[in-house]
Amino acid sequence: MKKRESISALDAQLEALKIAFAPVIFQVVRTMREFGILTLLDKHKEGLTLEEIAQKSDISSYGAKILLESALSASVVLEDEGRYRLSKIGYFLENDTMVKTNMEFNHHVNYKGLFELDKSIKEQRPVGLEVFGEWDTIYPHLGVLPPKAKKAWFDFDHFYSDSAFDSSIEKLKAFNPQTVLDIGGNTGKFSIRFAKNSENINLTILDLPGQIEMAQKNIRENGLEDRVNFFPLDILNHEAEIPKGFDIIWMSQFIDCFSKEDAIKILTRVRESMDENARLCILEPLWDKQRFKSASYCIINTSPYFTAMANGCSKMFNSTDLFDYIRRAGLEIEETIDNLGVSPHTLVKCKKSL
Amino acid sequence: MKKRESISALDAQLEALKIAFAPVIFQVVRTMREFGILTLLDKHKEGLTLEEIAQKSDISSYGAKILLESALSASVVLEDEGRYRLSKIGYFLENDTMVKTNMEFNHHVNYKGLFELDKSIKEQRPVGLEVFGEWDTIYPHLGVLPPKAKKAWFDFDHFYSDSAFDSSIEKLKAFNPQTVLDIGGNTGKFSIRFAKNSENINLTILDLPGQIEMAQKNIRENGLEDRVNFFPLDILNHEAEIPKGFDIIWMSQFIDCFSKEDAIKILTRVRESMDENARLCILEPLWDKQRFKSASYCIINTSPYFTAMANGCSKMFNSTDLFDYIRRAGLEIEETIDNLGVSPHTLVKCKKSL
Repeated sequence: MKKRESISALDAQLEALKIAFAPVIFQVVRTMREFGILTLLDKHKEGLTLEEIAQKSDISSYGAKILLESALSASVVLEDEGRYRLSKIGYFLENDTMVKTNMEFNHHVNYKGLFELDKSIKEQRPVGLEVFGEWDTIYPHLGVLPPKAKKAWFDFDHFYSDSAFDSSIEKLKAFNPQTVLDIGGNTGKFSIRFAKNSENINLTILDLPGQIEMAQKNIRENGLEDRVNFFPLDILNHEAEIPKGFDIIWMSQFIDCFSKEDAIKILTRVRESMDENARLCILEPLWDKQRFKSASYCIINTSPYFTAMANGCSKMFNSTDLFDYIRRAGLEIEETIDNLGVSPHTLVKCKKSL
Repeated sequence: MKKRESISALDAQLEALKIAFAPVIFQVVRTMREFGILTLLDKHKEGLTLEEIAQKSDISSYGAKILLESALSASVVLEDEGRYRLSKIGYFLENDTMVKTNMEFNHHVNYKGLFELDKSIKEQRPVGLEVFGEWDTIYPHLGVLPPKAKKAWFDFDHFYSDSAFDSSIEKLKAFNPQTVLDIGGNTGKFSIRFAKNSENINLTILDLPGQIEMAQKNIRENGLEDRVNFFPLDILNHEAEIPKGFDIIWMSQFIDCFSKEDAIKILTRVRESMDENARLCILEPLWDKQRFKSASYCIINTSPYFTAMANGCSKMFNSTDLFDYIRRAGLEIEETIDNLGVSPHTLVKCKKSL
């Protein structure tokens, strides 16, 4: 049965206009953050006049007026008798780490390149990435992004995945593994944390040769070189075998970086490396598994970044698609554990189908 | 008394996230328009599957999925049993001229330059305009903007002002003028319409020398050269006198193109040109005079265009500010007529203060 919509025509028109003016409001609010106006209003709960705001943030009255009028129209600030204060929405824009991390990521990494979203879809490559360089994908070049873009990218990446690491490690330990293959181990962050947490575990990081160098440095600095090994491999070389003999194969926010076809091929090769006792553990934020609409909103709307900026062919999953890929690769889902970390992740434990 | 906010914390967080992801949703919806997906869904009220949408709009299933999932999260489409259809918000995005005109304007003219809104405010110049050229202001260069930006700019400009011209002309005729000075007459559009409407009126277009050439051509093509005269002048040269002896001095969406200081100086010079029977008639959309929140939302959020792209110092008015400038220039407001045209304009009739 079709859902009835309770929104009035007048409200629907206003919502459509909010989309039509979305880049304006985005840049107005970001500028207010940049100038410290959000922080200022958060401190002065009693409200400030336009002139006070202009003076304290060292901008012209004209500039303050442009920002405050737009912010008022978007219910980011409220005005009473000439005094401006933060609304509840403004409060979250100033204080919520998820909101801030996404906003910085969308400005410094995605904003300009998203202009080419249509071309990226048509040409099936990340045309927006040309803002930063003549590259096929963003991944090998993260280290050379402009400083603000680089910071925003890593802040964004770590904010989501790191929060689920500790609870994931507890779950993995319950499966009692001796050896773990960390596919897409990146800077070594997960392996370092797991190795420090569990003395009896040996880990192997599999990643691109360039990433491995970075990871090796971090592992040495943490004094873990005797328990963490390395396996440099371009996972997209589908002729190359995945190393065998691990109790757990771990993939955190990894398989969402590939096209459907590549993802299924990678999972198939992982299955081929597994014996019957091995388990593949996939950690992903799934947008249909979120308790709050806010979290699923963030996950869904991260996908256009993959299209326009990252590689032109990957996206964030819902459980239907991820589980479908897993099964097509000849794997069986043994257990799923939801609600790990913020914008919570799901841990999917898989074994070889018999 | 302070307004109480009825929004819940959870909803406020979601609204903050909508701002944080605003450029994503904007480009997703614009891409859906570009690919004809909005039109397609508007025609197929029964809904279409993702595969049908991909096929009919000639994009990959992956591309269609990226767009539809984001659109779903922003309530632009609805989904029932695998079939997607337009929501009420989607209906307005597809069918409302005000929404479409603003969206095209914000994409083709403003999007990239708005990235520099913070710098534009700090440096008090339209830094975003560098996207198009090394210019001080946009106005003398409208003719050489890239074709899509040029079309979007003029569509936007005409959509708002033209709608109020016919009803304004009826009001002006009631004041029984013989001679009209059309300050900022631009392409001659208003003067041509007035001259064709009223056989006994003589008009003079005052504008920049470059604009006058364009206007002259249009006046000749309309066979009105015996009733429309020209006065080339850079209005920002505050030493230059405004010509005298007109019954009505007309300014449509003109005074909003200047800084407060320049606007007051221009109005003062206009007053000096007026005898006691002359009337200054200013046509402006005022954001506090709108019946609908949607219209005031559009007017307010046009201001950042002036900051980042046009000249770095002007904005759309509310009545308080405009009336203040008028009075400071030694003029008296004799009459105001609201609700002319779409996003309705106010006609402000002024005489010399005695």
